[in-house]
Amino acid sequence: MGVHLQEAMRRAVDESDKVRGSTSPNPPVGAVVLDVAGAVVGVGATQPPGGPHAEVMALRDAGERAYGGSIIVTLEPCDHFGRTPPCSQAIIDAGIAQVHYAVADPVSYAAGGARTLARAGVAVTTWHDATPVTQGPLRAWLHRQRTGRPHFTYKYAASLDGRSAAADGSSQWISGDQSRARDRAERSKIDAIVVGTGTVLADNPWLTARNPDGSLTDHQPVRVVVGTRPIPPEARVCDDAAPTVFVRSRNIDDVVEALKDHVDVVVEGGPHLAGAFFKAGMVDRITAYVAPVILGSGTSAVVDAGVGNIADAKRFHCESVSLLGDDVLISLVPR
Amino acid sequence: MGVHLQEAMRRAVDESDKVRGSTSPNPPVGAVVLDVAGAVVGVGATQPPGGPHAEVMALRDAGERAYGGSIIVTLEPCDHFGRTPPCSQAIIDAGIAQVHYAVADPVSYAAGGARTLARAGVAVTTWHDATPVTQGPLRAWLHRQRTGRPHFTYKYAASLDGRSAAADGSSQWISGDQSRARDRAERSKIDAIVVGTGTVLADNPWLTARNPDGSLTDHQPVRVVVGTRPIPPEARVCDDAAPTVFVRSRNIDDVVEALKDHVDVVVEGGPHLAGAFFKAGMVDRITAYVAPVILGSGTSAVVDAGVGNIADAKRFHCESVSLLGDDVLISLVPR
Repeated sequence: MGVHLQEAMRRAVDESDKVRGSTSPNPPVGAVVLDVAGAVVGVGATQPPGGPHAEVMALRDAGERAYGGSIIVTLEPCDHFGRTPPCSQAIIDAGIAQVHYAVADPVSYAAGGARTLARAGVAVTTWHDATPVTQGPLRAWLHRQRTGRPHFTYKYAASLDGRSAAADGSSQWISGDQSRARDRAERSKIDAIVVGTGTVLADNPWLTARNPDGSLTDHQPVRVVVGTRPIPPEARVCDDAAPTVFVRSRNIDDVVEALKDHVDVVVEGGPHLAGAFFKAGMVDRITAYVAPVILGSGTSAVVDAGVGNIADAKRFHCESVSLLGDDVLISLVPR
Repeated sequence: MGVHLQEAMRRAVDESDKVRGSTSPNPPVGAVVLDVAGAVVGVGATQPPGGPHAEVMALRDAGERAYGGSIIVTLEPCDHFGRTPPCSQAIIDAGIAQVHYAVADPVSYAAGGARTLARAGVAVTTWHDATPVTQGPLRAWLHRQRTGRPHFTYKYAASLDGRSAAADGSSQWISGDQSRARDRAERSKIDAIVVGTGTVLADNPWLTARNPDGSLTDHQPVRVVVGTRPIPPEARVCDDAAPTVFVRSRNIDDVVEALKDHVDVVVEGGPHLAGAFFKAGMVDRITAYVAPVILGSGTSAVVDAGVGNIADAKRFHCESVSLLGDDVLISLVPR
């Protein structure tokens, strides 16, 4: 495996990550074209619905230099006429000699790209390690293809002893600057963000995605407020910075139904809503910002997850752990 | 800096770590002797009180091969006649040409070894990075020299949401095999272990250090039970596997006074005792085994730390984070 191929796949994954949030319901895909000598000559990622796919963007970027070269792409090239012509044909037309893709297309009507390419004499190789893609930019989309429902990430910031607010309700800020900056950037890449009415009434959050200078990002997640308590119209979530949906129910099934058109959804709490998601087995990932502080009292991050005995604990698997400033960022997936 | 010197210091630190717990009130020190060519010819660590120091052990191990060589030691060689003759003289007598030590001796009556060695024509060098020693094997002893009181580590295992037991009180096991094995091994290296009467009544723990096969280790920490509730004589902490001290008070000052002859003390909880230590500013390190599970109810790991507002949170600094099996092991020190 050449170093240039490794670099190219890493670049393709990075490019696909950049367009997360702007492609739904299509998958965020990245592609890199190498010329015959192995030099990067084209880079592309999926455009918003109706626009070109990643392969076409990368081939356009490469132009004639693609001839006889390779394309490295995070998802198997599609083989069907949808709103755009099939990528398999565009690759053949460009004279690409070799295709490397990380993940096979799970969508039956779009799959078959690899077979079409091979029949046309293109060498097609499946990448040796799909996890940077399956755990990364395509995780939520693949989950939705597999389960038919959105991918839910429970995201929270808490003290080492599991408190999301101090005894007097104060919570700004438990986590550090770097954690909050990452969280703001992440919001611009998701489809929807869910909170309970209690959180809206207590904290009056905007729930918007913002650039480092505080301005709104181009893409905003839909704000979803769950619960039966009335929200005053002057609440910040009712402003026109982003669409807001109210789910006047405490039943998680109703929440999932209301979000059925979305792919990548983040649940922020409060503690009872988080508990209800855990109880329903609907948490597909946990993103925990654990701050190096002890509170000893105050609001617990998660309440009433339906666990009475340790044997019934909701068990996860640590996918990654890292230091982010002075906080510990832990990513977990169900075991 | 030669690779052999780096290796030798790493080895000296490892050797000193092995004797932690068996040297109090003396510091656990490690020493490595290199011959003229830079080969390891002697290794030693502090023996129990009254026995030889690390330097003497390493020089004995090296024998005549020490002549003209170097000694690498984690603490400045002592310069005084205590129960043993000064190490500085032993080093001079062995014909050592070069001494590297990591930490200067903070004890006035023992210090001066470096000066004595230099006057005798031995080249003496302070190590460029003392942190593996000051944050490691000598941490508790240095703390005691500096503050006059024991070094307290609050150690706990909890779920991601900060619960040390489920709603029905069950807690075996929140943390995984590897965490529990590390914890059992660590117990054999400390001087005392502190729990509240509530923990003894609820869990009836042995609080003993055990080998992987379950047998008792040679060194056992003193078991310290804090609180006013009566403990039945058939409680496991009352057996003869290790000494047990009862502090019939809830005042942390009384606990510190009772432990004044100890160096390295671990506080295990329960939550109110832990809270009292945080409230008193007596937590010198946190060792957190965070399990990848959500409970949503049950006992909080820390209760009543005297924090009302987020601005008063007990703030720490992450010294290290690692994965231990499926748990996250976080080590924190006060900010």
